[in-house]
Amino acid sequence: MSACEFESLERTLESHLPETELSEVKRILFGKETQKLDLPTCAVNAATERDFELKGYRFEAAPEQLRPPRRVRVGLIQNRIVLPTDAPIRDQIDAMHSRVGEMVEVAAMCGVNVVCFQETWSERSPWSGTSHCDTSQSQRTPTCLLLPTAMPFAFCTREKEPWTEFAESAEEGGTTRFCQELAKKYNVVVVSPILEREGLRGTLWNTAVVISNSGSVLGKSRKNHIPRIGDFNESTYYMEGDTGHAVFQTQFGNIAVNICYGRHHPLNWFMYSMNGAEIIFNPSATVGALSEPMWSIEARNAAIANHCFTCAINRVGTEHFKSEFTSGDGKEAHHDFGHFYGSSYVAAPDGSRSPGLSRTRDGLLVVEMDLNLNRQISDKWSFKMTGRYSEYAKELAKTVQHDFKPNIVKE
Amino acid sequence: MSACEFESLERTLESHLPETELSEVKRILFGKETQKLDLPTCAVNAATERDFELKGYRFEAAPEQLRPPRRVRVGLIQNRIVLPTDAPIRDQIDAMHSRVGEMVEVAAMCGVNVVCFQETWSERSPWSGTSHCDTSQSQRTPTCLLLPTAMPFAFCTREKEPWTEFAESAEEGGTTRFCQELAKKYNVVVVSPILEREGLRGTLWNTAVVISNSGSVLGKSRKNHIPRIGDFNESTYYMEGDTGHAVFQTQFGNIAVNICYGRHHPLNWFMYSMNGAEIIFNPSATVGALSEPMWSIEARNAAIANHCFTCAINRVGTEHFKSEFTSGDGKEAHHDFGHFYGSSYVAAPDGSRSPGLSRTRDGLLVVEMDLNLNRQISDKWSFKMTGRYSEYAKELAKTVQHDFKPNIVKE
Repeated sequence: MSACEFESLERTLESHLPETELSEVKRILFGKETQKLDLPTCAVNAATERDFELKGYRFEAAPEQLRPPRRVRVGLIQNRIVLPTDAPIRDQIDAMHSRVGEMVEVAAMCGVNVVCFQETWSERSPWSGTSHCDTSQSQRTPTCLLLPTAMPFAFCTREKEPWTEFAESAEEGGTTRFCQELAKKYNVVVVSPILEREGLRGTLWNTAVVISNSGSVLGKSRKNHIPRIGDFNESTYYMEGDTGHAVFQTQFGNIAVNICYGRHHPLNWFMYSMNGAEIIFNPSATVGALSEPMWSIEARNAAIANHCFTCAINRVGTEHFKSEFTSGDGKEAHHDFGHFYGSSYVAAPDGSRSPGLSRTRDGLLVVEMDLNLNRQISDKWSFKMTGRYSEYAKELAKTVQHDFKPNIVKE
Repeated sequence: MSACEFESLERTLESHLPETELSEVKRILFGKETQKLDLPTCAVNAATERDFELKGYRFEAAPEQLRPPRRVRVGLIQNRIVLPTDAPIRDQIDAMHSRVGEMVEVAAMCGVNVVCFQETWSERSPWSGTSHCDTSQSQRTPTCLLLPTAMPFAFCTREKEPWTEFAESAEEGGTTRFCQELAKKYNVVVVSPILEREGLRGTLWNTAVVISNSGSVLGKSRKNHIPRIGDFNESTYYMEGDTGHAVFQTQFGNIAVNICYGRHHPLNWFMYSMNGAEIIFNPSATVGALSEPMWSIEARNAAIANHCFTCAINRVGTEHFKSEFTSGDGKEAHHDFGHFYGSSYVAAPDGSRSPGLSRTRDGLLVVEMDLNLNRQISDKWSFKMTGRYSEYAKELAKTVQHDFKPNIVKE
């Protein structure tokens, strides 16, 4: 069985383990059991018809006397590209618009409040300020929900063209304008990770645009840590972000976006949390041979350590490129860089997590979370109270000096 | 099946999953397969006779041209108390000396270079400077290897007596002197986590004493973060450590000790790493209902994020106390605080990990690691190069100010 055929860890465990042992295995691996969320029949049917996975789970919090529950539904979308990467760009865009559009429609049926897409899914949208369709509630047909494309993750190729053509303005680009319409139509906050081209300077960034459910652009969050590893030599395309650790206050909670490689940096998660993030999204693009055993560890560790929810999203499928490229590992030149393994999931502050989406299929993960759980777990585990951050601020300030003397005890 | 009967995750998976799926499940859960380490027959037989689990694994690194391999064997010991906690203290000590002693002897047979015990295993040793036995190589009988006891983890009781009687000097206590003899005898570095009573002040600390294989006390590392959670209200016994993030340079590599609750604090691991730790030990005492789903996440995340090896050690068994106590959760008073689930393991910087020891049995985990892997993975993944620590030093300094204004973007 090859790594790209293996459907999901959860399915394998459920297929083979006896019930009593299964429950212990799940408890150890996933923590307190995540309840299934009832989803509307129309959504379930639509997902089946449209051939993508739809899963729903619920994280509960204990009732409190002074605070009502703060239940939020997030939607995580993972998808593959639809047409080959050497098809005409316009055709690729149209095909992917259809695909992602029909998935977002289902998210809306499920009552999702905040939706997040995978890393760098933007394009210079054909949408130019005039809606392609009637966006009224009575016209919710899939063809009216064309979304900006998930661009191929072409950074392995080292080619600038045609890929940099996908870049656009975070504030005024077609993708952002399209998402604004979507946000208003469905009363949904949209986290839209794009390849950004910055105004007059024209520089590129890897950026998530956050759009309020009112339709206004709340702001943007640029990728803070840029990988230089294997095929992910993205530093040739854009630089380390300069937007710090902004947190966006929405009607549905305070959210932040830690893009892809930033999940390997505990300080990155930490600083979003220190700025008040209740949900941190991690839109990613990563392949099995490289990172899969880390995938279930890092976002989940961040949820535990920072008393918040984290949402890890990865694309699926294998993307082939016309121009062959090498991976800096001495192997022969090739045309793809492996299988994006999906497996998107949500982790909770109590150490539990949702099951993952499939490793191979497009999918929508709908998770309802009661944000009251964050403070409840913080009061229980007290990592922030016991964090001694003033001590670390002093130590870290010394550590970054060039004359830093490590505290090494020798005999 | 109750949580204390479930033997181990790994055993369950291996018993029920078909081979092809098992290999994928293991890859996703544990990363690159850890090779088994051949252990001497005498050690295997001795472990069987003495009724404890013995497992050996090996983490390899790629050959390099300019550096020879830097292979180190660490030994992690997990054990239960032997006699009831209300037995005469002297009897408890003697019984546990025998037990741990016979386990350490097997570690020596396996060529272990650095051995680490679980949290707070010390006592005011009967050993008073005169050896109880001939420690020469020719006299390696189990009775010659009496070790200081693993004290019951009595902090749940809130009682000070008799438990504080276990405390002793880190530099001059009987436990330390005993471990010094052990270190010299077996040419082994000993990490000895004790309940420390500090000199003339007489204050208590939760401390790991690090003893060189030469027999000298290299130094000590006090627990930096003290839990105030459920039954682990340890702040009534000792305070936050004041030894910072000391790293100990030994003949077998640079080691550090992150005691128990400090594993929930990513900054704690991070700062040991910034001071040059190649192996970070995490001697712990934690029970299933509280922390088990976090156990496999945190030390492993630290190994990944910091390009180093981490060694997580937990005791086993259920400890009953004569005086009943409450757990601050509204439930009835009781005499134990649940099952210590063992499951000690080693995590590597490449995202892989060893299988865990049993959840229920005493055990010795012997792991050979090539420390060259740390730099190889650092060069590959580059988390430190891309860490932007200067930026975080500035941000963190602001964050700890009382007039800190979080970076929250509002509509």
